[in-house]
Amino acid sequence: MLPDFHKFKLEKLTDEHIKSLEESAKRARIAALTMVSAAKSGHPGGAFGAMEMFLTVYGAADLTPENCSGVKRDYVVVSHGHTSAGVYAALSEWGFFDREEAMAHFRQCGSVFQGHVEREVPGIDWGTGNLGQGLSAGVGFALAQKAVGHKGRVFVLMGDGGQTKGQIAEARRMAVKENLTGLTALVDFNGIQLSGRRDDIMPCNIKALWEADGWEAVEVNGGSFAELYDALKNAGNNGKPTVLLCKTVMGKDGLIMENTPEYHGKPVNPEDYAKIVEHLGGNPDTLTKALERRKNPPSFKGREINYPSAPNIDTGKPFDYAGKMDNRGAFGKALADVGKLNYKKDGKTPILVFDCDLAPSVMTGAFRNECPEYYIQSGIQEHSVATASGAASIAGVVSLWAEFGVFGIDEVYNQQRLNDINRAANKTVLTHVGLDVGEDGKTHQCIDYVGLMRNMFDWKLVVPVDPNQTDRVTRWLLKTPGNICLAVGRSKIDGMKYYSGDYKFEYGKADRLRTGKDGSIFALGYTAQIALKAAEILESEHNINISVYGVSCPLQPDMEALREAAKSGPVVTVEDHNANTGMGAIMFLEAVREGIEIKKAKTLGVTHYGMSGNSDAVRDEMGLSPAKIADSFMKVRG
Amino acid sequence: MLPDFHKFKLEKLTDEHIKSLEESAKRARIAALTMVSAAKSGHPGGAFGAMEMFLTVYGAADLTPENCSGVKRDYVVVSHGHTSAGVYAALSEWGFFDREEAMAHFRQCGSVFQGHVEREVPGIDWGTGNLGQGLSAGVGFALAQKAVGHKGRVFVLMGDGGQTKGQIAEARRMAVKENLTGLTALVDFNGIQLSGRRDDIMPCNIKALWEADGWEAVEVNGGSFAELYDALKNAGNNGKPTVLLCKTVMGKDGLIMENTPEYHGKPVNPEDYAKIVEHLGGNPDTLTKALERRKNPPSFKGREINYPSAPNIDTGKPFDYAGKMDNRGAFGKALADVGKLNYKKDGKTPILVFDCDLAPSVMTGAFRNECPEYYIQSGIQEHSVATASGAASIAGVVSLWAEFGVFGIDEVYNQQRLNDINRAANKTVLTHVGLDVGEDGKTHQCIDYVGLMRNMFDWKLVVPVDPNQTDRVTRWLLKTPGNICLAVGRSKIDGMKYYSGDYKFEYGKADRLRTGKDGSIFALGYTAQIALKAAEILESEHNINISVYGVSCPLQPDMEALREAAKSGPVVTVEDHNANTGMGAIMFLEAVREGIEIKKAKTLGVTHYGMSGNSDAVRDEMGLSPAKIADSFMKVRG
Repeated sequence: MLPDFHKFKLEKLTDEHIKSLEESAKRARIAALTMVSAAKSGHPGGAFGAMEMFLTVYGAADLTPENCSGVKRDYVVVSHGHTSAGVYAALSEWGFFDREEAMAHFRQCGSVFQGHVEREVPGIDWGTGNLGQGLSAGVGFALAQKAVGHKGRVFVLMGDGGQTKGQIAEARRMAVKENLTGLTALVDFNGIQLSGRRDDIMPCNIKALWEADGWEAVEVNGGSFAELYDALKNAGNNGKPTVLLCKTVMGKDGLIMENTPEYHGKPVNPEDYAKIVEHLGGNPDTLTKALERRKNPPSFKGREINYPSAPNIDTGKPFDYAGKMDNRGAFGKALADVGKLNYKKDGKTPILVFDCDLAPSVMTGAFRNECPEYYIQSGIQEHSVATASGAASIAGVVSLWAEFGVFGIDEVYNQQRLNDINRAANKTVLTHVGLDVGEDGKTHQCIDYVGLMRNMFDWKLVVPVDPNQTDRVTRWLLKTPGNICLAVGRSKIDGMKYYSGDYKFEYGKADRLRTGKDGSIFALGYTAQIALKAAEILESEHNINISVYGVSCPLQPDMEALREAAKSGPVVTVEDHNANTGMGAIMFLEAVREGIEIKKAKTLGVTHYGMSGNSDAVRDEMGLSPAKIADSFMKVRG
Repeated sequence: MLPDFHKFKLEKLTDEHIKSLEESAKRARIAALTMVSAAKSGHPGGAFGAMEMFLTVYGAADLTPENCSGVKRDYVVVSHGHTSAGVYAALSEWGFFDREEAMAHFRQCGSVFQGHVEREVPGIDWGTGNLGQGLSAGVGFALAQKAVGHKGRVFVLMGDGGQTKGQIAEARRMAVKENLTGLTALVDFNGIQLSGRRDDIMPCNIKALWEADGWEAVEVNGGSFAELYDALKNAGNNGKPTVLLCKTVMGKDGLIMENTPEYHGKPVNPEDYAKIVEHLGGNPDTLTKALERRKNPPSFKGREINYPSAPNIDTGKPFDYAGKMDNRGAFGKALADVGKLNYKKDGKTPILVFDCDLAPSVMTGAFRNECPEYYIQSGIQEHSVATASGAASIAGVVSLWAEFGVFGIDEVYNQQRLNDINRAANKTVLTHVGLDVGEDGKTHQCIDYVGLMRNMFDWKLVVPVDPNQTDRVTRWLLKTPGNICLAVGRSKIDGMKYYSGDYKFEYGKADRLRTGKDGSIFALGYTAQIALKAAEILESEHNINISVYGVSCPLQPDMEALREAAKSGPVVTVEDHNANTGMGAIMFLEAVREGIEIKKAKTLGVTHYGMSGNSDAVRDEMGLSPAKIADSFMKVRG
């Protein structure tokens, strides 16, 4: 029977507690070894080395099988997700699931006990395995706790090899600036990584770096329950986030595995398995039994990790714009309006807004003024913010990050991919997308966001046609579950009657803004306004009358609209996005899949890196001015 | 007349030199201000603040209009590329191009003087603007200098706001580990960033961090030519890479601009323009003249920055594999073979290989043993390595980085995008792509590399069908200019006769591995071997005879093959890649564009995040086993 020290309710661990924990560690090491041997793959060395850390953290945290899917509790992030066998073993000791099931089905197709920890397993708060992201996730959880007014703790366990990842330094600074004293990091300091000794691979003065970034760094014997418990209990008491540098031995208590880089990532042979299990007081038959059970499909299905439910916020009344207005400005005004309506109102879900030194450009300044405590200025640290914002979004708040396109998706694609895998509810607002970035030039032209988002399975993406639609989409996405991206350009454009008044945004619907009989243009976002001008040229100069569809949801093409359009003549797509990977590419692929025949098709878009100049000139050079679009239509028509 | 102190040939700058440089700084500030005012956009504050730094570095470096497109010289990287107006002004002072031309055509569509510095401008060694990448580029240049045996210097100028980017810390550690004492960083320490004061946005103990990573940090008055020159001359003398923390005043000598965050990124009004120009001893008519000239198209076209020419290496004789072999293993053997053939041979281009703690998995160990001095172990620091490897590739060496798929492209997509924009010749070898990653699970399944690469304009991508083709492609890519990615899975597969012996790889050609009359399967890389098994099932069970094409170049579909295949019946594509963004998506889009009618089409591939298990099981769950592929074909056939 394990001692109950959840929420640090014990002053100290007694000798008796420790004895019981040491027995638990033996069982857990046998379980971890059995998992890896049953799967014939995995990472036993790290699992053995950090077992005391896993057991102490999961024992002390306010995190139980009962409360682990709720919000007001402690969070634990295992950043070095490849130690999964050790994590599952420790969680099973603390009653999160049946140990036998984990031993039998580790790394088996169809089992939740994946090679790297995933949220489907109760007790796992963030799916990792791509190193460097865990501390940022911890920052996100801690910020959410603060916003919902819960004085919880957040623990982040990390390897020492991955300490070189730059994202960790960004997360450290966020933690200090936001004064997250409840956040405690634990570095599993075994000196060994995949291909050898840490000091040979890449020297890194870990302690000095944590201290330079403002953390309290405490050295701890990572193999001692007593030391770990005391250090964890006291962490943060001096008013700083604390890192425990836990001296561990890779493969500890694993005989041949001890201190051997070889067993970072491979199983021991059967003879060594038996020796190690006996050394730990267990029965080598454990593996035989696990393998027997492995022949059946897994019975434990894990938990549902669907998106958090819709937040409780009031989204207010939409604003209408008749004249010129930039979409980013309309977003900023709607955000501030919704922010103000809900700010610190009883029972309302907090709305956190992250900024990376771009408030004047991404228009989050008004929100900052209305909701100062919910505005998180995070500096130029996009990798960390992408993850922190994602993690916060599943911990009781609405979480939104506004950023230039190239920094909010190109720079952090893998972080947003992990947000997708973790089924977070991150709201990412990309401004300055497409060629509409002013004179900043090709490095700043985000002409690939549709293509990037299309690679993931659950993100929604909205590219509004005008400021009125932008306003409505902003209010909608704040209230809607799941990861959602809003992408807008920089220029002032017309507020359109179509999207004003009672217009209701419907995800996936293309809007027919003009009706004609001689073919169609489907245009993405604000380029629909350019396409309308092209249509006027076609009518006045060629007496050709076309339909123009405004497309705001390129990832979910409106096939009914396309089917209809295909009957009337050529279909031309227009977007200031890479023509190979954007809306047009998606629509025409779906047409092939659904057997819709389009006799004359053309994808207009970005076909090379753009120039630096005013947006009209840059678009014209790319063939995307009204006149050139009209010309292209005529050529396709033949 | 500016003093000649290139290559630090002067012991000290005399008062007379300094006077002449101060006059130069005034002219350059007027030029920078005029650029921003003529373009009505840009970043005057940083340009003014760092002018002495720009002038001193470009004056002292062994970098001239004559040698700037060669290799054996000094390199200068401006990481905060938004200070472009200041950089162009300083370069024009040193004779790289005509100042009037830069003033007239800054940020104008069609001009090389883009908003962020680009390599088309002589003197610019790396196109930047996405913060955090410059120091890594400097590391790459310095590594290349070392490999070609040139004792040059590399200077990297950076802003202080961007010091928070994690990639910088990674680059610092690479520089120290590789002992790059000729690398000198200069931080433009003005305390102001886009949205306010640095200490308010994100506190960061810059000096302590550089020192913790092992650099010598020297504080310098960034407004003093004498101090800058001395510090630059002495940097590195104590055996460490050195950073100069240059105290500057944003907007220095710009009256209203001085110390004002507002002018980080916007022009002054016309009255202030006149006042500032007069204050600097110039004539406010300068702007009028620039605007007059701006009405004409730019006359200066910049320089060609096409890929470096083919390296001088011997690629040896291909190996043949008849039995089971993993593609990653075949890559590793070919790489080591070519490495050994050329290692330190007279006149041969050095081949640098970068590793991020994965040699045993990505199979670069044999190369390391053969060519120890050309193997760069860089630790778990992928962002920095992606850029360093890219920069090295345009500085006189062949540069190759082998990495797991998710870390070599998903994690560093924006770095690889900048390699594309910079027209580098980075060879990136992605192992463990697709579902073929062993039991690591969804976070490690790189099922989006084709889609990611498709977003860029110049990368080539090869996904070999078998170990024999892998061998030949490895030899080919080492010798071929441009950014090229080789993507391989983890499992052992068959060496095929088709690709052995005299087979010659041809980029863009699909290989018909089996010929039938009842339809076709196009399959990406090793999945062609699975498709062949599906074809056998179709023949034996349904008496249906199909063609199977092995596709290794998904970015350049073989339209002739597709046209031919479309005539014979259904076309099914197979890949263990996201079916929405991979080979099939590309082929069918091109079919629509070229008007090829495909009556029955199906894209088989990855449709949700994969399981963790052995590759056969994971593929089967995804519908990609031979039997399920055959089933799908039958369904499409109807």
